[in-house]
Amino acid sequence: MAEKITPRATDYSQWYLDIVKEAQLADNSDVRGCMVIKPNGYAIWEKMQRGLDRLFKDTGHVNAYFPLFIPKSFLAKEEEMAEGFAKECAVVTHYRLKAEKGKGLIVDPEAKLEEELIIRPTSETIIWHTYKNWIQSYRDLPLLINQWCNVVRWEMRTRLFLRTAEFLWQEGHTAHATQKEAEDEAQKILMDCYRRFAEEFMAMPVLVGPKTEGQKFPGAVYTLCIEAMMQDGKALQAGTSHFLGQNFAKAFDVQFQNEKGQREFAWATSWGVSTRLIGGLVMTHSDDNGLICPPRLAPIHVVICPLGKTDAERGPSIAAAEKLAAELRGLPRDEFFEYDPITVKIDTAFDKSPGFRYAEHELRGVPVRVEIGPKDIEKSACAVARRDRPGKEGKQFGIPLTGAAEHINKLLRDIQSSLFERARKFRDEWTRSVENYEQFKEEIEKPGFILAHWDGTRATEDKIQQETKATIRCIPYSVPREPGKCMVTGAPSAGRVVFARAY
Amino acid sequence: MAEKITPRATDYSQWYLDIVKEAQLADNSDVRGCMVIKPNGYAIWEKMQRGLDRLFKDTGHVNAYFPLFIPKSFLAKEEEMAEGFAKECAVVTHYRLKAEKGKGLIVDPEAKLEEELIIRPTSETIIWHTYKNWIQSYRDLPLLINQWCNVVRWEMRTRLFLRTAEFLWQEGHTAHATQKEAEDEAQKILMDCYRRFAEEFMAMPVLVGPKTEGQKFPGAVYTLCIEAMMQDGKALQAGTSHFLGQNFAKAFDVQFQNEKGQREFAWATSWGVSTRLIGGLVMTHSDDNGLICPPRLAPIHVVICPLGKTDAERGPSIAAAEKLAAELRGLPRDEFFEYDPITVKIDTAFDKSPGFRYAEHELRGVPVRVEIGPKDIEKSACAVARRDRPGKEGKQFGIPLTGAAEHINKLLRDIQSSLFERARKFRDEWTRSVENYEQFKEEIEKPGFILAHWDGTRATEDKIQQETKATIRCIPYSVPREPGKCMVTGAPSAGRVVFARAY
Repeated sequence: MAEKITPRATDYSQWYLDIVKEAQLADNSDVRGCMVIKPNGYAIWEKMQRGLDRLFKDTGHVNAYFPLFIPKSFLAKEEEMAEGFAKECAVVTHYRLKAEKGKGLIVDPEAKLEEELIIRPTSETIIWHTYKNWIQSYRDLPLLINQWCNVVRWEMRTRLFLRTAEFLWQEGHTAHATQKEAEDEAQKILMDCYRRFAEEFMAMPVLVGPKTEGQKFPGAVYTLCIEAMMQDGKALQAGTSHFLGQNFAKAFDVQFQNEKGQREFAWATSWGVSTRLIGGLVMTHSDDNGLICPPRLAPIHVVICPLGKTDAERGPSIAAAEKLAAELRGLPRDEFFEYDPITVKIDTAFDKSPGFRYAEHELRGVPVRVEIGPKDIEKSACAVARRDRPGKEGKQFGIPLTGAAEHINKLLRDIQSSLFERARKFRDEWTRSVENYEQFKEEIEKPGFILAHWDGTRATEDKIQQETKATIRCIPYSVPREPGKCMVTGAPSAGRVVFARAY
Repeated sequence: MAEKITPRATDYSQWYLDIVKEAQLADNSDVRGCMVIKPNGYAIWEKMQRGLDRLFKDTGHVNAYFPLFIPKSFLAKEEEMAEGFAKECAVVTHYRLKAEKGKGLIVDPEAKLEEELIIRPTSETIIWHTYKNWIQSYRDLPLLINQWCNVVRWEMRTRLFLRTAEFLWQEGHTAHATQKEAEDEAQKILMDCYRRFAEEFMAMPVLVGPKTEGQKFPGAVYTLCIEAMMQDGKALQAGTSHFLGQNFAKAFDVQFQNEKGQREFAWATSWGVSTRLIGGLVMTHSDDNGLICPPRLAPIHVVICPLGKTDAERGPSIAAAEKLAAELRGLPRDEFFEYDPITVKIDTAFDKSPGFRYAEHELRGVPVRVEIGPKDIEKSACAVARRDRPGKEGKQFGIPLTGAAEHINKLLRDIQSSLFERARKFRDEWTRSVENYEQFKEEIEKPGFILAHWDGTRATEDKIQQETKATIRCIPYSVPREPGKCMVTGAPSAGRVVFARAY
């Protein structure tokens, strides 16, 4: 099985695509830039949605749904946004086909729209157009709304999950009476939802902090982000939370009466994460044998493989597997099994060799595999293999069947925290400081994050990107702001920022 | 509050729109035919999704996601489908905008697509194009896949939830090795998922059975449906399950090797329900005071209104409300509270009159309202009002606070079953048989379903529709197939069918 996967050391990029394909997460479709998310991939997305949705609701947000179509004139109203997205818009111009002899189905020229409709690349414009009707008084605020939907950005170079023309995401759009409230909201989403989700559910450590002016979202006053390091040392922007100031309220004339009876423009945030997270999950944890999925997001937590060569051998193995599965499913719900009981699959594909069966479950990233064969039955025991440590190191023999469910329950938690610790260690090892631009140019050819001083100007940022393909990923809260001198211009710097090459 | 709602007797159609607006379920958007589903409406949709998704998964289905865009040539491949949907397709022709001096943003003529893309009106074509790669052997079958997504059908006359250009739905697409398996699947979805969901979750009784040839889905061999009666006596098609035969397998050349080693085309079903169900829910149960929501789909189950004129009075009321809320939230989960604990809201809007507060909760359809005021506190009791029986009839005074949670728990179940029984009684009362076309023409002017004999031809069905605006809604399983003579032509009829005017 593992031969299907190109080793990371050989070709990291191909390794990623092999995992996505062989673990059956997604396929390219024949529609340019659009992917098909296969059941195994979509099951991870469903777990992600549930976890995130719970975090949003626990922080006071509700869901709603706004139109897929955005009239062209709406997009034009916010200048930076129009500029940022105009080049990648799918445009609906007609609303009817007709059959024409010899030509088959053609677009009916008589069914041309008066105003073209854009497929939403993001929904600030249509939502703030709507909010104008919803917001009259400070009593209508805050509006804390999220939307789960599909969006389209006509990307020319696509890669499954990481960059596709159509993708699935959530986009939050909030309106507030004061600047402070809106800024607090952007911060809360960053820290209490996105950072928490990345670290606690995905076991993916992230840097958090603002983007630079050059990297911010079109239409934002500033953008906050969570930024992760993949196993090849490249950065992945995993989620963004924008403070939009009054930009959209002004563009769509959304004013409210404040407590003093004065008219004021509302303050806004928006924030989103997408199916890109699935790519991040794959690239943070997986190995050359296949997908490694953190237990809290695993569609199947435990696979039990009864073994045996004859029906007489298989019978007791299957019975023991079923008993253990029932015990596992009966474990009390807690944060791990918040929504569903623990998911257990019993694999009875006796027509395949045990090795083949194990490899298949490894490929798909099932966190724990249990093997129960005739010799185990004799000892009333089983073997338990943890996916995050392949080979002998991760396999325990002779685990008594009595108590095995509780043992596995603990093991799942241990896998979750071990994956996080391993990823954090990796990131920290591949993060270093440089003191001058020469050193930077050398270091940037190696994997990882580089902490360096920068003079805060767009010009310097652009120059560095042009010369080294590195961008400033984040001005991380975790790095103390100690003044220094820009590695390029020598001008004063307020503190180090994180540079990396990125997905 | 209730003055905002036009009474049903005055104008049923306006009553419906008033409920949707005043209960804040949805708004028309400024994008032609598209609605904004507001948080209150979306919360019902989320409950619907969870209930349905559970039923689908319990019957072996998994979720996946396919592209929004369908190349025009895909649609053309299945003739009936092309004919059925060509007239209502939103067509993407370009993939870029550009800024032009004096004109603002324009569609970039140089970014014209080689092949136009249709926004999916339904996904059979793109999915069967994909299945070609997934299905090689009988071992790959059955494929039991569902998708939650948005679709677009360019309707000219729209009405919130019931008929909109964009709507949300689920669409199941299954592939099978044999005709029987596929037909069983279409039947299972109809009976075990859709009928069950309509009756057990929505408390909406439905007729089940096949559609006629004239009413079937374009591309289907036959269509099964659940059909409900609204309070104005009109029919609402609430869900359909199609047996597609080998039509799509042939159109997209999806062949597999069967157990005998022969090549064969796969057998297919598709099935869907949409946000239209929210319209059905509103029109089945609500009254002139507002929305009535069956408890199993209610976003908030219980609202508790502490009362009191002074802080000294309010304090104990609030404390008792909080205690009761905690008890309610602690009730054990069962099918009613399968996914979340019971949802309780405490309304402390003391600046509004109690009557105003009650009316607001009635408007929004909260199934149970609890009132706790100073006099109740004296008796350690509360008043409990059930939404399905407005006024005195549905209000119980002096319910002891000790045991109130359990009382309310039972009451919620009683409301659920009472709503169903009331709707069933209404439907049965407004269903009658007619023996000739004269009588039919008279009866069809009154509300309800009419059982009549029909000769089975499309011509007769069309004639009846033209002359009376009534369509055959269903050939219901519940009506015994007793032969007779067509009310129009006198030709033999195999049994009565259900006629009605429909949404």
